[in-house]
Amino acid sequence: MNAPERVIAVDVMGSDRGPAEIVRGAVDALGDRSDYRIMLVGDREIIQSALPACPAKERERIAIVHASEVISMGEKPLQALRTKKDASMVRAIELVRSGGVDAMLSCGNTGSLMAGSTLKLRPMVGIERPALATVIPTFQRYIVMADVGANPNTTPLQMMHNAILGSDYCSRVLGVERPRVGLLTIGTEEGKGNETSLVAHDLLKAMGALIDYVGLIEGFQIFSGAVDLVICDGFVGNILLKTLEALVIQLKDYIRREFLANPLRMLGALLSRGVFGALKRRLNPEMYGAASLLGLNGVVLKSHGSSTRRAIRSAVGLAVSIIGKGFRENCLEKIASAKEIYGASRGCV
Amino acid sequence: MNAPERVIAVDVMGSDRGPAEIVRGAVDALGDRSDYRIMLVGDREIIQSALPACPAKERERIAIVHASEVISMGEKPLQALRTKKDASMVRAIELVRSGGVDAMLSCGNTGSLMAGSTLKLRPMVGIERPALATVIPTFQRYIVMADVGANPNTTPLQMMHNAILGSDYCSRVLGVERPRVGLLTIGTEEGKGNETSLVAHDLLKAMGALIDYVGLIEGFQIFSGAVDLVICDGFVGNILLKTLEALVIQLKDYIRREFLANPLRMLGALLSRGVFGALKRRLNPEMYGAASLLGLNGVVLKSHGSSTRRAIRSAVGLAVSIIGKGFRENCLEKIASAKEIYGASRGCV
Repeated sequence: MNAPERVIAVDVMGSDRGPAEIVRGAVDALGDRSDYRIMLVGDREIIQSALPACPAKERERIAIVHASEVISMGEKPLQALRTKKDASMVRAIELVRSGGVDAMLSCGNTGSLMAGSTLKLRPMVGIERPALATVIPTFQRYIVMADVGANPNTTPLQMMHNAILGSDYCSRVLGVERPRVGLLTIGTEEGKGNETSLVAHDLLKAMGALIDYVGLIEGFQIFSGAVDLVICDGFVGNILLKTLEALVIQLKDYIRREFLANPLRMLGALLSRGVFGALKRRLNPEMYGAASLLGLNGVVLKSHGSSTRRAIRSAVGLAVSIIGKGFRENCLEKIASAKEIYGASRGCV
Repeated sequence: MNAPERVIAVDVMGSDRGPAEIVRGAVDALGDRSDYRIMLVGDREIIQSALPACPAKERERIAIVHASEVISMGEKPLQALRTKKDASMVRAIELVRSGGVDAMLSCGNTGSLMAGSTLKLRPMVGIERPALATVIPTFQRYIVMADVGANPNTTPLQMMHNAILGSDYCSRVLGVERPRVGLLTIGTEEGKGNETSLVAHDLLKAMGALIDYVGLIEGFQIFSGAVDLVICDGFVGNILLKTLEALVIQLKDYIRREFLANPLRMLGALLSRGVFGALKRRLNPEMYGAASLLGLNGVVLKSHGSSTRRAIRSAVGLAVSIIGKGFRENCLEKIASAKEIYGASRGCV
């Protein structure tokens, strides 16, 4: 007997590029694997009008779940959740809660997605708040960073949980068997850092049985290949992620402009275009296409508001790779073990 | 009558490249302007043996201050300060305190430099802790960021002070008359951020008479040209700075490797080498060569441990540009005004 077929819900509304782009990316993703189906959540008419442009073969594994409302980017997250009960994002989260789907993906309003999925799915037993984990391309490899913005006041205990959940995530997504975990701070000497990082460092050191904690790392070690998972406060992680994204975009623009400055350079660009193709592929944020909310009773992925069909295709693939291997059970077990270690280290059980 | 001649103390010890490189950079800097002198602080014999390789004309404006000890990079900052009373760094700071020089520059142990100069020079009246401000190259312009690591638990009040001191610094160093100040956070909507940034935002909004506060900025706005001065917590700033530095180095390596992959690309690189020359100049950290400690009763600059002579030359030039215009008086006046505004806003004088 085959394994039961997995189902991914894709909220097609609320993106900068419009629903058709998301629909196309989701349908394209079905072409990559045959072992799952997709529920497109949003305005039925809009989805139906976008489908004919998609590959016919894959359309058979699509179902539509109608939702009459959309939470837009500019809306206040909690207010939007309160007033728009039939928003596509809300419906997709509810599908996860009811067990109708195994994961959901949205490129809509980040605040609403985080608040809505936390309220409706609830954090796992032992987890206080979810964390946003994302894959970051570096020049040698991919790494995972958490938290990148779900929780701007991450406590040391929450960082410890993020390291455990993030390690598991990192294994699934990057295929690293025992991910090396680093805690991002401002100096690797003992005693250097801010109050949160100092306490978190002690907690992480005690988790040797559950994670491969390599210790404190500084900013320049993110790209050095020393770690697979970077743990940081959601405030720091969010700023870092956005800064790096902006830097890559500006770098591309700059190089393009400079190459167009004279005919000799244009010829040079032509001869060496392989270099920039390689660089572009290397730093392509579409490669994984989504960040994941870790620590909830359900798999929730967030794609960029400006995601292309290519990014959505990757993101759906990412969702499938996460859910395929008993994600929740594994995490619950490790969080329970962490609690025992933590409790024992404080003299209580 | 001419303006009195300025004097800059340069701690030549404790760098990764050895004293001769620092001596050479300092002497080269004298060639750029004729209105100041330099005191080289360190082992007299080592300095004397390095001088003959330097341009003869400039050597006349050099004095040597002997110091028998060196604080090395790996030492614990406070312990080193306690035990090495005759360290070159300590002597250079004391020259600032005694008025023997107008500014000092070191590429030695950052922790010792921050702790030593704070202890010996003391913060200005009204200032709690110094901040490290640095010039960051972006693709369009230079910007200043503070704090980048002096104070990993920056409070909102300290951020407000950094914005005032940093604005003055930004004007002097970048020549921007009224620098636009942004507070780095994770979302520009009111109410988004961590506890510190939310309070700091309110304080900065009240300082309209003293600074041009443009509001909250996110990571991707650092490079967008929207601000001249980025205010952030020292923990965030330090991580960001080191990450960006590492990224630029790795990017250069990556592009170089890719260009060497085949002869066609090598020819391409030759034809378009202007592009990379431009990029290298644009992102060159040697352009300013040092970060400044703001808020002390004296001008203290910190260069990278691995600074080249070119970086030291720039750093000395930076020191001269800061001290030339009544730096301390101006700052004291503004900090006093800030206190009045702040006091009035809380109903007390």
